[in-house]
Amino acid sequence: MHILLTNDDGYNAPGIQTLYRVLKSQTNHDISIVAPEGQRSATGHSITLFQPLFLTQYNLGGQQKGYAISGTPSDCVKLAIQGGLVATPDLIISGINLGPNLGTDVFYSGTVSAAMEGVLLGIPALAVSLTSFDFMDFEPAATYLAEQLDFIVQHNKDGLMNINIPGKPLAEWRGVKVTRLGKAVYENVFERRVDPHGRTYFWQCGKLTQDRESDTDLRAIQEDFISITPMHSDLTDFAGVESWQTIFDSDKG
Amino acid sequence: MHILLTNDDGYNAPGIQTLYRVLKSQTNHDISIVAPEGQRSATGHSITLFQPLFLTQYNLGGQQKGYAISGTPSDCVKLAIQGGLVATPDLIISGINLGPNLGTDVFYSGTVSAAMEGVLLGIPALAVSLTSFDFMDFEPAATYLAEQLDFIVQHNKDGLMNINIPGKPLAEWRGVKVTRLGKAVYENVFERRVDPHGRTYFWQCGKLTQDRESDTDLRAIQEDFISITPMHSDLTDFAGVESWQTIFDSDKG
Repeated sequence: MHILLTNDDGYNAPGIQTLYRVLKSQTNHDISIVAPEGQRSATGHSITLFQPLFLTQYNLGGQQKGYAISGTPSDCVKLAIQGGLVATPDLIISGINLGPNLGTDVFYSGTVSAAMEGVLLGIPALAVSLTSFDFMDFEPAATYLAEQLDFIVQHNKDGLMNINIPGKPLAEWRGVKVTRLGKAVYENVFERRVDPHGRTYFWQCGKLTQDRESDTDLRAIQEDFISITPMHSDLTDFAGVESWQTIFDSDKG
Repeated sequence: MHILLTNDDGYNAPGIQTLYRVLKSQTNHDISIVAPEGQRSATGHSITLFQPLFLTQYNLGGQQKGYAISGTPSDCVKLAIQGGLVATPDLIISGINLGPNLGTDVFYSGTVSAAMEGVLLGIPALAVSLTSFDFMDFEPAATYLAEQLDFIVQHNKDGLMNINIPGKPLAEWRGVKVTRLGKAVYENVFERRVDPHGRTYFWQCGKLTQDRESDTDLRAIQEDFISITPMHSDLTDFAGVESWQTIFDSDKG
């Protein structure tokens, strides 16, 4: 397989670099990297239309290339594939992200959006996150992924899998759960301050509350399981389409 | 009702200002505005975590306030509601956007993402777009919305409706279609250039191809119908969850 790696923590982030090294040493796949030149967390699915995209090229050895891009994670995937930077990949892996991408927070996630962009372009994709902001040992997560890759790809022909791995030592992982996306609810989301000029401003922060539903990704991670969530790319509410067609037929017809 | 207006074209954009004026004059609703201080197109569902959010307050007359925010469309909705800038709205309207928000392009849309943010926070929302980049008469679209508002709200208790209105004179509108999101496919997405220093760079642009499916939003707009698409907020692939649980049970159990 030819695998394209991307992320939202930036080209030089330890998560993607560890993943590259482990996949190179433990599998026979060809691997390219097209990733943002710097930190792009919480950029969601934004793309760059009104500024040009610059790139820095790295030689990864052999035929494979690495590119650091001045845009967003979704720009990277689009430019890699639609701009022809690399050969069309068989799989995209976005990550390994430092920090969780769970529940409704996937909408804000550059990591998940880059994987989603792959799926929109017809390429199966994995978004992979280590669910801690300070546990920096990506090696067990990368090794898990390398070991499971053929199994996952065999069953994921065209979709997006959102994988969150406990940000803890391997010995504390309790297994794997296939989950749905939970609802990420935060308390005290904004902190209000006044600057030395008297202007009010806000920091967006907040504390994630516990998810009480038993079958969600948020809950699986709370309980130290690896969470795997199959995702789709169609935001149409099909039941809504049907009922609105009825409403229009009866009220407007 | 208390209606919160937001957009991604910026607080002073003609689309949102026309919508405010028309809703004020043609309905009895209370209306607040919390919108980005400038242009934020294609920012998707990005939010601002690593910089503070500043705001400029405007007096809209009466009890209602207007705020221009230094962040993204989703920041505006979050700050308005979770930061308590305005009373909790009964409805959010994002728009009227200058330019279409159709098909899979909704992922990139600040307009749609702001509406989605409302739904994630439990508030029904409409995303409204005029599907032209140069037809600047928002009056007929705003009037249509004012006239249909009670009808739409009555049937949209908690969801997101993505409404695209032909960017043409009223006389050319052919009616309303309830649609699903189509697949926005572009040709020649990137244009490669070389700067005077010899560095390669890319402009992201591309030409939208025709949608051949008959029941999509893209097709409805091509044929000069107003397109209304009910959208949901759950990206879980539930069929995938079920089949992956079976796969894990049989291969791993």
